[in-house]
Amino acid sequence: MRIHVICLLVVSLFSSAFSDSYLLPRPLVLQYPSEIVTRPKKSDEDVINLHCTSWRFAAETNNLSPWKTIPEECADYVKDYVLGKGYVTDLERVSEEASMFASSVEFAGDGKDIWIFDIDETLLSNLPYYIDHGFGLEVFHHSEFDKWVERGVAPAIAPSLKLYQRVVDLGYKVFLLTGRKESHRLITVENLINAGFQNWDKLILRSPDEQHKMATLYKSEKRDEMVKEGYRIRGNSGDQWSDLLGSSMSQRSFKLANPMYYIP
Amino acid sequence: MRIHVICLLVVSLFSSAFSDSYLLPRPLVLQYPSEIVTRPKKSDEDVINLHCTSWRFAAETNNLSPWKTIPEECADYVKDYVLGKGYVTDLERVSEEASMFASSVEFAGDGKDIWIFDIDETLLSNLPYYIDHGFGLEVFHHSEFDKWVERGVAPAIAPSLKLYQRVVDLGYKVFLLTGRKESHRLITVENLINAGFQNWDKLILRSPDEQHKMATLYKSEKRDEMVKEGYRIRGNSGDQWSDLLGSSMSQRSFKLANPMYYIP
Repeated sequence: MRIHVICLLVVSLFSSAFSDSYLLPRPLVLQYPSEIVTRPKKSDEDVINLHCTSWRFAAETNNLSPWKTIPEECADYVKDYVLGKGYVTDLERVSEEASMFASSVEFAGDGKDIWIFDIDETLLSNLPYYIDHGFGLEVFHHSEFDKWVERGVAPAIAPSLKLYQRVVDLGYKVFLLTGRKESHRLITVENLINAGFQNWDKLILRSPDEQHKMATLYKSEKRDEMVKEGYRIRGNSGDQWSDLLGSSMSQRSFKLANPMYYIP
Repeated sequence: MRIHVICLLVVSLFSSAFSDSYLLPRPLVLQYPSEIVTRPKKSDEDVINLHCTSWRFAAETNNLSPWKTIPEECADYVKDYVLGKGYVTDLERVSEEASMFASSVEFAGDGKDIWIFDIDETLLSNLPYYIDHGFGLEVFHHSEFDKWVERGVAPAIAPSLKLYQRVVDLGYKVFLLTGRKESHRLITVENLINAGFQNWDKLILRSPDEQHKMATLYKSEKRDEMVKEGYRIRGNSGDQWSDLLGSSMSQRSFKLANPMYYIP
């Protein structure tokens, strides 16, 4: 009986390898642990959990096509993740990994080693906004979000603030590269300072003629300029792959979790 | 009472934003769902699960420093993931996402549109080997693994076989780009064919002088050559970021899950 259940599990993963036309030279000897056989049947909640965890992995690894909202069936899952321990655990880990790398870089001492930070969902959290807007279930609403930004009350992501201070203390130049628009410069500076961020070297926002550029292109062009000016981009922290991929990529990139929205 | 518990949760995420020195202009109005307050205390198993899921995310998003073994405390977690529904669900999703993208590309019809596949943990599964070697808990053992490769019995990853057939049917040229060595060409071809893979256009293995190159460099150089020959790399499927990152990157990259080992 035990053997039968094991075989079913194997076939679900490797079905094609065991069909008649692709018969393997000899049967695989699979030593499956016994607990798999005795595990209870999955509840509906387990099924949703599995499905939404898989969706979240696909989002975080950049495997999904551009998406505008989170899957409806994952609304509670995303809410539980961002308000529970999962999100903060992930944020702490990426901060620690980045900090370890930052400490390991050997500096030339010429002031040309830089670290790039994105702002939204990287240094500042818009979670208070998303709590009121379905955690990504609602389609992004520019003017509503602008109103939130203009209040200037987005709190710091604590693990990112810790990394930020470490990076500044180590002697990196810090460049903030954000998709926010130039007209939000003052309120962004005020918000950053109130949230504890200080001593950055550049704050780069989108100029009016850059409004409709894809984020990947806009950020790549800004990184290209930095490289042209002789800077070495050692680290780059962002919650979107469009913060990290493209040209003039950083020596190491750090992807912060964000299961609520996607920016191409 | 309810309010108190809510505050603690918020502070854990945004602690720095609420300390005296960084006082925000006004308190945030956080509307937290009631179920968070009534949720039971996490068991030890929940804590390990949270920790290891976070580790797996960090691995899959390329946030970790190079690692040689999985964390000891995550041994059971990784085993349960790869033998349970989690891994196969993730493999099916990446196959479907890649398939949708492959179908959406408009072809020039000149035979220059290609799809790159890695082999190990992308087309063929070495899970039968890793079942006998601690699912990544043991340090990688070259000669032991070579013996397994030389048996030529690695089964197909069924969702990848489905994608592969779709990509071939759509008219892409298929290039297999693997870190396996040239001396394993014959057994690799035999294994691939027995597992159901056919009609690839190139199978690129490491030549003896490429043995000690980092995978990212080796694979980038091979992609550079493809681009020089006029090929358009539309898709690239691999379980390692060293399959996907570097120069001449693919239009879209697809990261298959692999929590068992890391290749720089």
